[in-house]
Amino acid sequence: MRLSRYFLPALKENPAEAQIASHRLMLRAGLIRQEAAGIYTWLPAGLRVLRKIEAVVRDELDRAGALELLMPTLQLADLWRESGRYEAYGPEMLRIRDRHERELLYGPTNEDMITAIFRAHVKSYRALPMNLYQLQWKFRDEQRPRFGVLRGREFLMKDAYSFDLDEAGARRSYRRMFVAYLRIFARLGIRAIPMRAETGPIGGDLSHEFLVLAPSGESAVYCDRGMLELPIPGDDIDYDGDLEPIVRQWSSLYAATEDVHDIERFERDVPAERRVQARGIEVGQVFYFGTKYSQPMKAAVTGADGAERAIHGGSYGIGVSRLVGAIVEAGCDEAGIVWPEPVAPFRVGLIDLDPADATVSAACEYLYAQLQARGVDVLLDDTGERAGVKFAHMDLLGPPWQIVVGRRGLERGVVELKRRATGERTELTQEDALARLSMRRNE
Amino acid sequence: MRLSRYFLPALKENPAEAQIASHRLMLRAGLIRQEAAGIYTWLPAGLRVLRKIEAVVRDELDRAGALELLMPTLQLADLWRESGRYEAYGPEMLRIRDRHERELLYGPTNEDMITAIFRAHVKSYRALPMNLYQLQWKFRDEQRPRFGVLRGREFLMKDAYSFDLDEAGARRSYRRMFVAYLRIFARLGIRAIPMRAETGPIGGDLSHEFLVLAPSGESAVYCDRGMLELPIPGDDIDYDGDLEPIVRQWSSLYAATEDVHDIERFERDVPAERRVQARGIEVGQVFYFGTKYSQPMKAAVTGADGAERAIHGGSYGIGVSRLVGAIVEAGCDEAGIVWPEPVAPFRVGLIDLDPADATVSAACEYLYAQLQARGVDVLLDDTGERAGVKFAHMDLLGPPWQIVVGRRGLERGVVELKRRATGERTELTQEDALARLSMRRNE
Repeated sequence: MRLSRYFLPALKENPAEAQIASHRLMLRAGLIRQEAAGIYTWLPAGLRVLRKIEAVVRDELDRAGALELLMPTLQLADLWRESGRYEAYGPEMLRIRDRHERELLYGPTNEDMITAIFRAHVKSYRALPMNLYQLQWKFRDEQRPRFGVLRGREFLMKDAYSFDLDEAGARRSYRRMFVAYLRIFARLGIRAIPMRAETGPIGGDLSHEFLVLAPSGESAVYCDRGMLELPIPGDDIDYDGDLEPIVRQWSSLYAATEDVHDIERFERDVPAERRVQARGIEVGQVFYFGTKYSQPMKAAVTGADGAERAIHGGSYGIGVSRLVGAIVEAGCDEAGIVWPEPVAPFRVGLIDLDPADATVSAACEYLYAQLQARGVDVLLDDTGERAGVKFAHMDLLGPPWQIVVGRRGLERGVVELKRRATGERTELTQEDALARLSMRRNE
Repeated sequence: MRLSRYFLPALKENPAEAQIASHRLMLRAGLIRQEAAGIYTWLPAGLRVLRKIEAVVRDELDRAGALELLMPTLQLADLWRESGRYEAYGPEMLRIRDRHERELLYGPTNEDMITAIFRAHVKSYRALPMNLYQLQWKFRDEQRPRFGVLRGREFLMKDAYSFDLDEAGARRSYRRMFVAYLRIFARLGIRAIPMRAETGPIGGDLSHEFLVLAPSGESAVYCDRGMLELPIPGDDIDYDGDLEPIVRQWSSLYAATEDVHDIERFERDVPAERRVQARGIEVGQVFYFGTKYSQPMKAAVTGADGAERAIHGGSYGIGVSRLVGAIVEAGCDEAGIVWPEPVAPFRVGLIDLDPADATVSAACEYLYAQLQARGVDVLLDDTGERAGVKFAHMDLLGPPWQIVVGRRGLERGVVELKRRATGERTELTQEDALARLSMRRNE
């Protein structure tokens, strides 16, 4: 993409309403724009990040055997009356009346609807286990929306729902999602730590939250340093295999949010030098809730023995739009955003220091075409701004690599390659720069 | 995908509420499920069709220089008051109050919001021309939602918006979208005919609708048969080139919906043997509306002469979810859906006539793996149903190709390849079948 033809409306001033780094940086870099309290437009560069996250989530869930569908944003209130949640949900649920005075709501989550879909179509245990997921916008009418996309009202969520004949099956489904989550977050280039959690309004008796550590995190977390070092299940993972040892390993070390923190156990079980006290941002949560929805909503299948029984369910959320904010929080510095490679809106920022110079522009055009041909996302700053402005702007936007092309370098046969995360700069030939960036593609 | 592990809830009975073929077939084949009047879940196979359409739309608009962003589904009522449309829009607009009694609405279209985004960030003519688009769910509270996804309330729309300094520029942007639309519909495997149209609530003085011919179409259309035969601009199209000759060619032949039909002109200009009277389904519409939004909303840029002027705008919609219904209407037969190759949920339906027979199953597994390795979407019917049920089910779902594998054929070294559209069957070796389907991939 050429910056001169792109829509990347960077703000020069710090937006007054932004209290934390990710909110400020996402607005300043031109990734999002607020349309109403907690309601955002995803500008082109922000949308690229969102789509990259979606693609990783989809790929891993498909591998784990889940099937994607798409439920509507609006739901009938009657459905929630059936599960008993309509009155219970409180003012965070956006309640709507249509032109015929029928009561609708903007779905804050979808356990009720997916249970209705399941019960209408699945009658036999032979269809199980089943896991259905979607990537869909949700709405929760927060009392005080803030922190940008970290606590928005309209937000993008991946929600998956598992259906099993019995508790043993449901726990296998739970472990499958637990492992998929470990892999998804790692593939996005971040470390999310699973912690035993309260089940809250979703209900059930088993739940883990996945948290990314960041100074601005909404909750205090306490864990064994080992949680930051455990190996992530590899590409050869067999989702149909026995995943219990992996979950056991990740459950064996202490990790808790402040809600469930047990200070005595923490000090007893974790040696002082391994105690981590930090803050975390929740980016996903998994629940096993048994028959909480299938009982009242009569979602039952016939087992091998001919008897009918309510299915055992679980639900599994990832806050996709929230993740963008969490990734920025976890990785930014004073100059701006530092994207992990897998989710960066552009992998390379190519800076033309002198667009009026034909030699410099020709070198930039060559590198731009070569990178695109190699499948590398590249943003070429071909504008007429001063060098200092271009450097600051590219640092703010945060592609993992920058190539800086200027006349003096070209006279010596080199361009400058800068790694955004470390600030490390190397002078090398254009061909070597291309080779480095092609090689590092799958890092 | 293996049917035994898939969620494709086919209905055995014709749903009573479905008055037209596409609605009936999409429900029966398990592509969609109604959640409320005019509000649908897209089940896995239906979602595959939607995603394939999205991918083609994106690819072609990106080529035409448009930039994708994503606006929220909910908007502030005040924005619509500013453009003067809030009161005018009528009961089709779903009006909402949040917990703080702020007035919101579920966007039925986005001219107002995109104009607000543009004016906040673009100040100079140098950023023009600009075209911003999104693929986002919209809501229109139809008085009587019906015909399934053809007239739903929550629907997926691609909406693009162009910004130019003057009318001449805006007309160039209009032509760019006109040509992109010709190519998008052709790439989806359908013929959509552009017709001069009324501008309705969007406003403006130049508009074309794109209609797909189908017996159940909502409006009568009249055109010169030549409109069905004009060549579609090829892959070598240059969107920055002069597109006026293409638009002129497509405007030179008579084509009108009943709203604007001029029977005298029709009979004068079109020889009797070339007159087509049919019914059509609108799948897209393009508008040039000048300064209708930029004037009241004060969206202006500074020109090369330093003077400020209101931008000239256009908007360009494609009903993505509606298209799925239109494609089914245009192509079904008594046995079910006949998908064009580019949008079929699966390109090949592979029927295992005898899953209990190890030889037959092994052949199916081989073909299944080979097709997947070649990037061909395949659905393997590995269920225990009778042959007749499997045939009927695959015809209903409508992949363009079927491979039928049975014991008797294998004894003679052949499988059967069936082309869904014509019913034509050929016996050939497994390798020949694979070669045929790999070859035909880009047909």
